[in-house]
Amino acid sequence: RVNADRLWATLMDMAKIGPGIAGGNNRQTLTDEDGEGRKLFKTWCEDAGLTVGVDKMGTMFATRPGTDPEALPVYVGSHLDTQPTGGKYDGVLGVLGALEVVRTMNDLGIKTKHPIVVTNWTNEEGARFAPAMLASGVFAGVHTLEYAYDRKDPDGKTFGDELKRIGWLGDEEVGARKMHAYFEYHIEQGPILEAEEKTIGVVTHCQGLWWLEFTLTGREAHTGSTPMNMRVNAGLAMARIMEMVQTVAMENQPGAVGGVGQVFFSPNSRNVLPGKVVFTVDIRSPDKDKLDRMRARIEAEAPGITEPLGVGCSIEAIGHFAPVTFDPTLVTAVRTAAEKLGYSHMNIISGAGHDACWAAKVAPATMVMCPCVGGLSHNEAEDISKEWASAGCDVLFHAVVETAVI
Amino acid sequence: RVNADRLWATLMDMAKIGPGIAGGNNRQTLTDEDGEGRKLFKTWCEDAGLTVGVDKMGTMFATRPGTDPEALPVYVGSHLDTQPTGGKYDGVLGVLGALEVVRTMNDLGIKTKHPIVVTNWTNEEGARFAPAMLASGVFAGVHTLEYAYDRKDPDGKTFGDELKRIGWLGDEEVGARKMHAYFEYHIEQGPILEAEEKTIGVVTHCQGLWWLEFTLTGREAHTGSTPMNMRVNAGLAMARIMEMVQTVAMENQPGAVGGVGQVFFSPNSRNVLPGKVVFTVDIRSPDKDKLDRMRARIEAEAPGITEPLGVGCSIEAIGHFAPVTFDPTLVTAVRTAAEKLGYSHMNIISGAGHDACWAAKVAPATMVMCPCVGGLSHNEAEDISKEWASAGCDVLFHAVVETAVI
Ligand SMILES: NC(=O)NCCC(=O)O
Ligand SMILES: NC(=O)NCCC(=O)O
Repeated sequence: RVNADRLWATLMDMAKIGPGIAGGNNRQTLTDEDGEGRKLFKTWCEDAGLTVGVDKMGTMFATRPGTDPEALPVYVGSHLDTQPTGGKYDGVLGVLGALEVVRTMNDLGIKTKHPIVVTNWTNEEGARFAPAMLASGVFAGVHTLEYAYDRKDPDGKTFGDELKRIGWLGDEEVGARKMHAYFEYHIEQGPILEAEEKTIGVVTHCQGLWWLEFTLTGREAHTGSTPMNMRVNAGLAMARIMEMVQTVAMENQPGAVGGVGQVFFSPNSRNVLPGKVVFTVDIRSPDKDKLDRMRARIEAEAPGITEPLGVGCSIEAIGHFAPVTFDPTLVTAVRTAAEKLGYSHMNIISGAGHDACWAAKVAPATMVMCPCVGGLSHNEAEDISKEWASAGCDVLFHAVVETAVI
Repeated sequence: RVNADRLWATLMDMAKIGPGIAGGNNRQTLTDEDGEGRKLFKTWCEDAGLTVGVDKMGTMFATRPGTDPEALPVYVGSHLDTQPTGGKYDGVLGVLGALEVVRTMNDLGIKTKHPIVVTNWTNEEGARFAPAMLASGVFAGVHTLEYAYDRKDPDGKTFGDELKRIGWLGDEEVGARKMHAYFEYHIEQGPILEAEEKTIGVVTHCQGLWWLEFTLTGREAHTGSTPMNMRVNAGLAMARIMEMVQTVAMENQPGAVGGVGQVFFSPNSRNVLPGKVVFTVDIRSPDKDKLDRMRARIEAEAPGITEPLGVGCSIEAIGHFAPVTFDPTLVTAVRTAAEKLGYSHMNIISGAGHDACWAAKVAPATMVMCPCVGGLSHNEAEDISKEWASAGCDVLFHAVVETAVI
């Protein structure tokens, strides 16, 4: 078993960097805080005898050598970046859990045929720069490096410039590394494991996603002196599209979600009807056909809302991944480890996207999940118990070692 | 008649300060650009022989002496601050029109019994600091100075600090000045004069307003892994309240408007359901009972929307003025001037709020309006013709002189 106290202490040390305002973290990708977190993580890796490489997306790869110089490495990781009001565990548990796996292997003197590479992917959250899972997407050949470098944050700063600025632009070609397998350990971020009283989620699939960025064009006008029948009200159109998205999601139950997290009104002044409204619809389903049908329906129904209001509407798909089926052999390795260790477990479909979804395009991949309190994530109040943290890490340890020894 | 070319050139010179991004202006209150605009205006006033005083709200009073030392002054003014994406005329025309009145009086050697005071009120727009018409409100005793100083912009900077910072904190007690009369010249900001092909609006009333700031409390949660039935979706509640406000406004036609110009989602991340949504509802009517009934209905219906969603809702009235009836004698002076000058005219109710609304509490007050193209205002594309500008200024000139001579 892994060292539960050490894992927890390591998590708490990382949480000191980029503290939030309500007990969580704000360590958004490519900020100074992200840079500080990377530095600390690098020190820990080197102390554990690992060699740290960095690629042109800033992704960090910390290698523990294997016994066979020909054998491809087993990658184990997740992300250290957070939401603006994020928790202490989303992503972080997967990176520091991987570090704990290696530390435990060191403690026990375990040698493996395949090297182990503890991995910290850049910009998983997609909060500062859309889309999410950006570096693993470039790694898997889904995006070009140029596309990634050109992504802009809300202040107009580019990913490429910010990566250089914080000093984590590496020299490795992105995606040049080949993987024997990829494991990712993560909190569930949803309510199922806790409700079912299971300690371990054996992740068989991940649901797919579309991010549809709407740009609505109204006419900026005075809220007082513009009669109702002369308004070209982009805000009202947004409200109606939000309701329509809700309806589409509800009519596709079970197995679908839809909502809006981000809204920009322009000029965003109390006495000005907005001339421009930009917002992003997030829809997901484990069923690819259903997901695509939801997208098609939303796009088909939007003009029926905007046109009668005279509002212009353009829709750009700024994020997408199809539902993923994880590698059956690795899934079995996770389930077997949970059984061997005597942890209660169940199969689960990931509701959130993860770097494992892109890694699965180029290697056998899977995930391990532990519960989180109330299913809450993307919230500073995100919480897990030390026991859950170490149980998942035990399972990760066993599955990784089993996969790496032979 | 006033000097149309000089008025227009002065308007264009002021428009060079704080240029917008689409041909208009961004000279929001108490910004550096506001400070620059004030400096230029002060120079112009001094060149016209006026003495400039400044009160503790930063309002500028430029006095042309009268012949009777006992006679109270006639105040003529409006505001130089703009919306973030404002036009070149909203407010500015009223201040520089007042300056043109004085310049014309100088040209013609006109002496008046009452002094004339060209006035630039601070923070009329209410865009950076709510509420609108803040300095005239303190002048009229509607707000305390402390209340005004504590108003915060979206970055948390206070009105009091920013007034000091730009160097326009004056020493005059606010409201100490007594007025013989108050005149304000403004573009209509609505479509009526243009549609009716009238050059002059004789402003008999101003409609009243409520600004209701809603704070909705949801639960920050992951947009992907949070099932629909576990969401506490403050964004959806906002959408439904927007639709309800639209319904309330439509069911109170004619003589009512309602809309939303400003929205803040928090944390405003694409994959986080908002934990907090703050937005401001702007409702107006010339009928006080109707206005108050609309407010009451919106406040009564909101819980029926938020409670089933589990969303918390608090509503604060952050801006209000009751409908205003302007002084009949001054209104007649405006109408008579328009007739004498041969300009087409009609009675009109102001759809927007103005400093004249607060001045009317402490003195006889009225307004003169000219049309604007397409009724468009609070938009950088706001436009008027040079002929409209000077026609309204001619009327202002005659009404002011007539009121000030005797
Ligand atoms: N795990 C996680 O929250 N990833 C962010 C991408 C997503 O929105 O699913
Ligand atoms: N005139 C004008 O636009 N004033 C701003 C206050 C309001 O919203 O009516």
